[in-house]
Amino acid sequence: MIDTDICIIGAGPVGLFAVFEAGLLKMRCHLVDALPQVGGQLSEIYPQKPIYDIPGYPSILAQELIENLMEQISPFRPGFTLAERVDSIEKDQAGKFTVLTSEKTLITAKVIVIAGGLGCFEPRKPAISGLEDFEGRGISYFIKDPELFRNKKIVLSGGGDSALDWTIFLAEVASELTLVHRGESFRGAPDSAEKVGQLASEGKIRLLLESQITSVSGNGHLQSVTVAGKTRQDFAFEADHLIPLFGLTPKLGPIASWGLALDKSAIEVRLSDYSTSVEGIYAIGDINTYPGKLKLILSGFHEAALMAQSAFKYVYPQQKLSFKYTTVNGINAF
Amino acid sequence: MIDTDICIIGAGPVGLFAVFEAGLLKMRCHLVDALPQVGGQLSEIYPQKPIYDIPGYPSILAQELIENLMEQISPFRPGFTLAERVDSIEKDQAGKFTVLTSEKTLITAKVIVIAGGLGCFEPRKPAISGLEDFEGRGISYFIKDPELFRNKKIVLSGGGDSALDWTIFLAEVASELTLVHRGESFRGAPDSAEKVGQLASEGKIRLLLESQITSVSGNGHLQSVTVAGKTRQDFAFEADHLIPLFGLTPKLGPIASWGLALDKSAIEVRLSDYSTSVEGIYAIGDINTYPGKLKLILSGFHEAALMAQSAFKYVYPQQKLSFKYTTVNGINAF
Repeated sequence: MIDTDICIIGAGPVGLFAVFEAGLLKMRCHLVDALPQVGGQLSEIYPQKPIYDIPGYPSILAQELIENLMEQISPFRPGFTLAERVDSIEKDQAGKFTVLTSEKTLITAKVIVIAGGLGCFEPRKPAISGLEDFEGRGISYFIKDPELFRNKKIVLSGGGDSALDWTIFLAEVASELTLVHRGESFRGAPDSAEKVGQLASEGKIRLLLESQITSVSGNGHLQSVTVAGKTRQDFAFEADHLIPLFGLTPKLGPIASWGLALDKSAIEVRLSDYSTSVEGIYAIGDINTYPGKLKLILSGFHEAALMAQSAFKYVYPQQKLSFKYTTVNGINAF
Repeated sequence: MIDTDICIIGAGPVGLFAVFEAGLLKMRCHLVDALPQVGGQLSEIYPQKPIYDIPGYPSILAQELIENLMEQISPFRPGFTLAERVDSIEKDQAGKFTVLTSEKTLITAKVIVIAGGLGCFEPRKPAISGLEDFEGRGISYFIKDPELFRNKKIVLSGGGDSALDWTIFLAEVASELTLVHRGESFRGAPDSAEKVGQLASEGKIRLLLESQITSVSGNGHLQSVTVAGKTRQDFAFEADHLIPLFGLTPKLGPIASWGLALDKSAIEVRLSDYSTSVEGIYAIGDINTYPGKLKLILSGFHEAALMAQSAFKYVYPQQKLSFKYTTVNGINAF
């Protein structure tokens, strides 16, 4: 079990910056994110895209902004639980929160901050019968730890950058690697597509174009995959792991069932401190809504600052908050 | 006369960033500041101090932040009126604003944004009888255009960095330069103090330590200055210009008389768009107040974004606002 002052749900730019604002007030943070890395949309969807509206940066790559934020918050030593979705939040009679994740990680906290962006990014799943029976038993949608796949028979499917990049990476790791793609060419970077083509012609991977996985089978754990090809008979082959990589779609997910006041798919907050309808739970960044709300990263940063002040007063109602400008003394980390 | 969409009073970081947010909505801005350069407190008071709480910058020098903001807004080509204080704002029956500065510059605008920080920085004036009679007639507190002093007899007074830096600079420009300082040593950078001492020993400037200016005289324009020394008889000498450099103090100044609702020395604003009690006038950054207000630069940035949206709707009530993320198309400047 993890115990912290503030459990931040969502490790995108706003969740990350909340660690800084809480840290200035000597409050520790633990972040949970359904994605396998920090950065939210910025790292997952557009890491190499320039952003122009971060004040003080005429232009910055999304991934670079995330790296800078990680450096900025490092003195406050936040904890991270990644690639796990928060399934439930309970508040006990003493006001303490208990967060339970999809992988059964338990986190207790005095304050909850939802910085969930557009919600969880859920993997797009191909229509294969029996797919769900093998989730966590040979079928996964994220690659959290590539070492799990060492010397295993791996099947990847998809035609975008994610499929190409992991094919190149795992070709070295797996004992046997197959990439199955519906189209005859790839949507990903031409450079990566060329590399994948070369790996196939060298016999280092099996590349099945104009093909689709039609069924999966096994005995408790995935054992084989059947592929139908446009110009070929269906055939089955052995597989320890199947990783469909068809992108992600944002969903509010379990957040919708936490008892918070919602307006469409956003959490209603009080304008002065971004607190939700449940005392001790705050919502900041793209996931909240209030009169005049703009879904800007910079607005989320401001919301994080005001939230931290309010959270401090909520946790320590007796203590006087001494708020110092960082220009005077710099930051005093833990 | 200058005509613009938005007249921004105050060219500190928040006023500057407001140009960006207005620019994204195709609104032009003109900035007025009482200081002779952009950047507000950051450039005037602590240009070389690192700031730690700008999101995405683990550390940035104040002056560097201002330079980055100037680069970020340059595509929107803002206008600047510097070293002039806004003395009055009038609103005509059609809702058009007219701004009048201390130097009688007239600016008309559809919207006024007060980003005045701690207020005007007013120069600290030494207690010299008759000083005010010669203001603008040989006595000035800022050096706006050093060329005004070419081949003139110049007297500077003060012992800080400003006095030292200008002494070094103007030694080359003036026909005769005198630095009068009350103390026996300088408060400014040791390096600059050494340089000034060297200029004095080389006979390039006259350095009067432990001395004070006691009176000024002239006939419509400054002609002579009298100095009293600790170990010396009073003496008068010719002077075309006297520039007292004793630092600045922030004052709300004329803003207090513009008819806006105030709370102590801050302007009360509506929380959703930072509009003041006068329709068409907004206040953003350190000068405003609302429930939960934190005097953070990053909060001012957020306020600028929400203000710009509201100002657009105020100016173009019929037009639909199309708000695009900068990651999609970059910025489209004028």
